[in-house]
Amino acid sequence: MQTLYWEDFEVGERSVFGAESVSRDDLLDFARRYDPQPMHTDEQAASEGWHGGLIASGWHTAALCMRMMVRHVLNRSSSMGSPGVEYVRWLAPVRPGDTLHLRMETLSRRVHPRRPELGFVTNHFEVLNQHNEVVMGMRSGGMFLLREPAAEATSGGDS
Amino acid sequence: MQTLYWEDFEVGERSVFGAESVSRDDLLDFARRYDPQPMHTDEQAASEGWHGGLIASGWHTAALCMRMMVRHVLNRSSSMGSPGVEYVRWLAPVRPGDTLHLRMETLSRRVHPRRPELGFVTNHFEVLNQHNEVVMGMRSGGMFLLREPAAEATSGGDS
Repeated sequence: MQTLYWEDFEVGERSVFGAESVSRDDLLDFARRYDPQPMHTDEQAASEGWHGGLIASGWHTAALCMRMMVRHVLNRSSSMGSPGVEYVRWLAPVRPGDTLHLRMETLSRRVHPRRPELGFVTNHFEVLNQHNEVVMGMRSGGMFLLREPAAEATSGGDS
Repeated sequence: MQTLYWEDFEVGERSVFGAESVSRDDLLDFARRYDPQPMHTDEQAASEGWHGGLIASGWHTAALCMRMMVRHVLNRSSSMGSPGVEYVRWLAPVRPGDTLHLRMETLSRRVHPRRPELGFVTNHFEVLNQHNEVVMGMRSGGMFLLREPAAEATSGGDS
């Protein structure tokens, strides 16, 4: 399989990939480790709360978004990590048994101002459940090596 | 211990809490589940890479930030969850054996425009390592019940 370089992320391009199922055990395991609040860990308390049952930690949903991104994109790319995330919005609850997909759109890209071998890509992500509801939205940046640094350095590198 | 309500988050107030240690096993376990990239999962590949050794997934650092926030603040509060995060910046690598603290500052708060029993609080977070380096910065929002909804509804509720 061909490695994806910075040049392969085309602005406006959209794709959908996944899926990841969220089992009750996985939901509880993540929550007990990292987000032990009753709405995520206590079946009885959660059933009496706002959401009428257990919901996944938003950070669990974000971690599953990352897993889909790694499995379907980053592990066949020249990724050099991420400087951060512009925003995350948790829009609808994720419940035990849900199956999630990831929709990705490339918004912009630019070459690093001082390192012509490295470029930034900004993507918008939507995590969808099996009813096609958007449960999470996120805009975030990634760094990738260029396939042909010199060519981009000469042309200015933005697109 | 007294429950923290919306009114108890005072703008400008700062606190530091923790600590959470990041063992090599925990780092690898999180990465294998949610962020299986060589820099996080493959000791040999990581030692030859940019960072000269294994580094934690940024999402693992975010999850540990959440764990500190739950243990020290949210689990004794009237928290009703979070609508999302304004930004996350991963500023320095987290390595096996690091010990993290969380610094929190309350930036603003307001009552929900249509639900006088509910308020929003915006906090800035910095995750610090044992050398007092900021490894992650984040601004995020939380929702909390008010102790005295009527009083805030009458006065306008902002501060």
